[in-house]
Amino acid sequence: MKLHGTMKIENNQLLIGDVSVEQLRAKYGTPLYIIDQTHFAEQANVFLTNFRSEKFQTHISYASKAFSNLYILGLAKELGLFLDVVSGGELYTALSAGYNPEKISFHGNNKLPEELEMVLANDIGRIIVDHYTEYSLLSALAAEKQKKVKVLLRINPGIEADTHKYIQTTGKDSKFGMSIADPVTYVLLKDMNSDPWLELEGIHCHIGSQILDKEFFFREAAAMFSFARNLLDDYSIIVREINLGGGFGVYYTKEDQPFDYAEFLAEYIVEIERIITELDLTIDTVSIEPGRSLINASGSTLYTVGAVKQPYQGKPFVFVDGGMTDNPRPALYQAKYEACLANRMQDEVTDNYRVAGKCCETGDILIQDIALPQAEPGDLLLIPGTGAYNYAMSSNYNRIPRPAVVFVENGQSHLAVKRETYEDLIRNDQKYFADNSMQKL
Amino acid sequence: MKLHGTMKIENNQLLIGDVSVEQLRAKYGTPLYIIDQTHFAEQANVFLTNFRSEKFQTHISYASKAFSNLYILGLAKELGLFLDVVSGGELYTALSAGYNPEKISFHGNNKLPEELEMVLANDIGRIIVDHYTEYSLLSALAAEKQKKVKVLLRINPGIEADTHKYIQTTGKDSKFGMSIADPVTYVLLKDMNSDPWLELEGIHCHIGSQILDKEFFFREAAAMFSFARNLLDDYSIIVREINLGGGFGVYYTKEDQPFDYAEFLAEYIVEIERIITELDLTIDTVSIEPGRSLINASGSTLYTVGAVKQPYQGKPFVFVDGGMTDNPRPALYQAKYEACLANRMQDEVTDNYRVAGKCCETGDILIQDIALPQAEPGDLLLIPGTGAYNYAMSSNYNRIPRPAVVFVENGQSHLAVKRETYEDLIRNDQKYFADNSMQKL
Repeated sequence: MKLHGTMKIENNQLLIGDVSVEQLRAKYGTPLYIIDQTHFAEQANVFLTNFRSEKFQTHISYASKAFSNLYILGLAKELGLFLDVVSGGELYTALSAGYNPEKISFHGNNKLPEELEMVLANDIGRIIVDHYTEYSLLSALAAEKQKKVKVLLRINPGIEADTHKYIQTTGKDSKFGMSIADPVTYVLLKDMNSDPWLELEGIHCHIGSQILDKEFFFREAAAMFSFARNLLDDYSIIVREINLGGGFGVYYTKEDQPFDYAEFLAEYIVEIERIITELDLTIDTVSIEPGRSLINASGSTLYTVGAVKQPYQGKPFVFVDGGMTDNPRPALYQAKYEACLANRMQDEVTDNYRVAGKCCETGDILIQDIALPQAEPGDLLLIPGTGAYNYAMSSNYNRIPRPAVVFVENGQSHLAVKRETYEDLIRNDQKYFADNSMQKL
Repeated sequence: MKLHGTMKIENNQLLIGDVSVEQLRAKYGTPLYIIDQTHFAEQANVFLTNFRSEKFQTHISYASKAFSNLYILGLAKELGLFLDVVSGGELYTALSAGYNPEKISFHGNNKLPEELEMVLANDIGRIIVDHYTEYSLLSALAAEKQKKVKVLLRINPGIEADTHKYIQTTGKDSKFGMSIADPVTYVLLKDMNSDPWLELEGIHCHIGSQILDKEFFFREAAAMFSFARNLLDDYSIIVREINLGGGFGVYYTKEDQPFDYAEFLAEYIVEIERIITELDLTIDTVSIEPGRSLINASGSTLYTVGAVKQPYQGKPFVFVDGGMTDNPRPALYQAKYEACLANRMQDEVTDNYRVAGKCCETGDILIQDIALPQAEPGDLLLIPGTGAYNYAMSSNYNRIPRPAVVFVENGQSHLAVKRETYEDLIRNDQKYFADNSMQKL
């Protein structure tokens, strides 16, 4: 297993942030999401220091849908990250964490009227408009509330990156944004540009997720800046801001060979500066939106092994006390993960296992094939690379409470999200009464 | 769209339980899970009245993992259903709903020690043991607590029903139960049978989910009763109870042609009686565990259309205010659904759409192809057949609050689960402080 961030081995034990995961089990129980705070801060700094230019402002906007809670957003704020939110709930979390509204962008293909009202009421920095109906709704609401609002239009430049079809976002039939090839896109931009309540800052795109070939990002930048030039030439629309989205691939297993972010970002800036000069554009701000690439490698999930079961056929199972409820990605995307026995890091790796969760569902297999030392009940199984889209996508399927989230750094641990209780599961439930008069509304 | 249960059309509007869904939107908002209480009670009665014998007791045990909350379990209790639970959380919900513990069975491939202790402390009717390690743990705990406990062993009879591989549960390499072909199974049964703290009542199996060919259930019964006869002959193990599980298929779209439950259950009883006579067995109890088949058709999800978007290529999208957060089944299993515009039931069906949710995820498409009247923002889109594994599998991905659940009957509505609030989303969150001393534990 690859050791990420501050992971190290001492006396056969895995440590993260100089805390042994055995101590974390003793203090917080399992399953447990563990975030390497030092590593997250370092990753943020890789983006903040390398994606910088003398010629325009740069915003590193954390795509909080990857992992959002009061703690991580408080930390992101301190690190100087801008923020993407995609719903009223993400916005509420950001505002509750004390985020400066001006640094927040609001995304989504189907923003609800109440979400747009919330955006206007809180003077959020930017709305990324998705389509014409949404523009009309926003324009009417802004006029009604007498609020000016900065907007970008989400553009679909038609660059199809090679990734899982569920997370590929720029097919010409994608639900997101407006195609560069669609005449309606230009009508919409003209209308947005002349709207008295909207300030059209520029354009946004996001070409997909978990992209491992940086070439796609260079193509994307070329397409977007050249589109900005066309808008100026053909429609006198001035693009001051270009948001290039995220999608920077990460390491899950040896099958993934992500590019070096620092190197890429430095090259990316040089290339963007070159394009801007070549096209003779005046651009105030270039933004990118890392989510997975910022948080994924900082997160691990710690489980206790309940049993090792040899079925009549096939590889033996290691049963853990979580599963598809805390990590639905293997079931959803056939995502692959590494793992280790965190309490026996130096034991000889001898056996091949499947790692299965405790859900009453055959598809609740976290890993189909993993080599480990001979596993036993009580062992600690750790799956790294679960920072993104694990806690965020977790459910209470089988009425399993969601795990706690703990941050570790320099030998200390900070509880970020308390473990759900059984009481939490029925908090919003109403009882049935045979005489239902009490329930009738 | 097929009209399920009490659904009917009046003045172009869809009514469920004699309540117009437009009224439900006005009272509860959308997205909204609507349960047809009359239909659920009728479905329960189909099982309760048709799966009955003079020769043995029958238990209809509701598989609550399909849909569990205080309200539905209170109703299930009143209807006389037994209950399956698969976790401490489901057990907690059942006990909180006032369920008689004697009527509850506890399932799962990886029951936690604390769950087994909870089962023992509450004198739960039966534990369905999955494998040897679990038996050893249970036996030790029962001895420690001086508690006798009734158990069944989950058997894998090796009948592979034709269904999605994620919900097919009896491949010989399944994570569930013990194979009929595995010598260890017989060692385990002998040890369970002679254990001073366990009362081995019998055997359990579950051959899969959403099975549309009833022939598999007849094969299953033949295999299980004949296995019971072998246990008596070869090991003097007396099987008093056989639990045949569930998996009875339901209608989602015209591609599914489920068998008639009343007819099947009556035939099933006759066949089971015939087998018992032929094998000269004495069986006290035969149980079945319907989940999806009891609740699915009683449930619908009501959405408001936010926009209709024509992408540059491909079918237009109808955007709704929910999505994979309230129904992950299309993304997980490529599950198909029907839909209607519930406020325009008699309008001419003219257009083909994709129905997409509001998640920032390309895979958040609820229906890939559906014919509807020309849709407009504000329309009510209803997807029927969402009673099972929708609310149960729902998540807060994108920090979207989970919908309310409302039961309807005879012109009245009863709130069963309150809509989640933004405040609920951060209830367990701890804030980050730059000086973290307050957080340190």
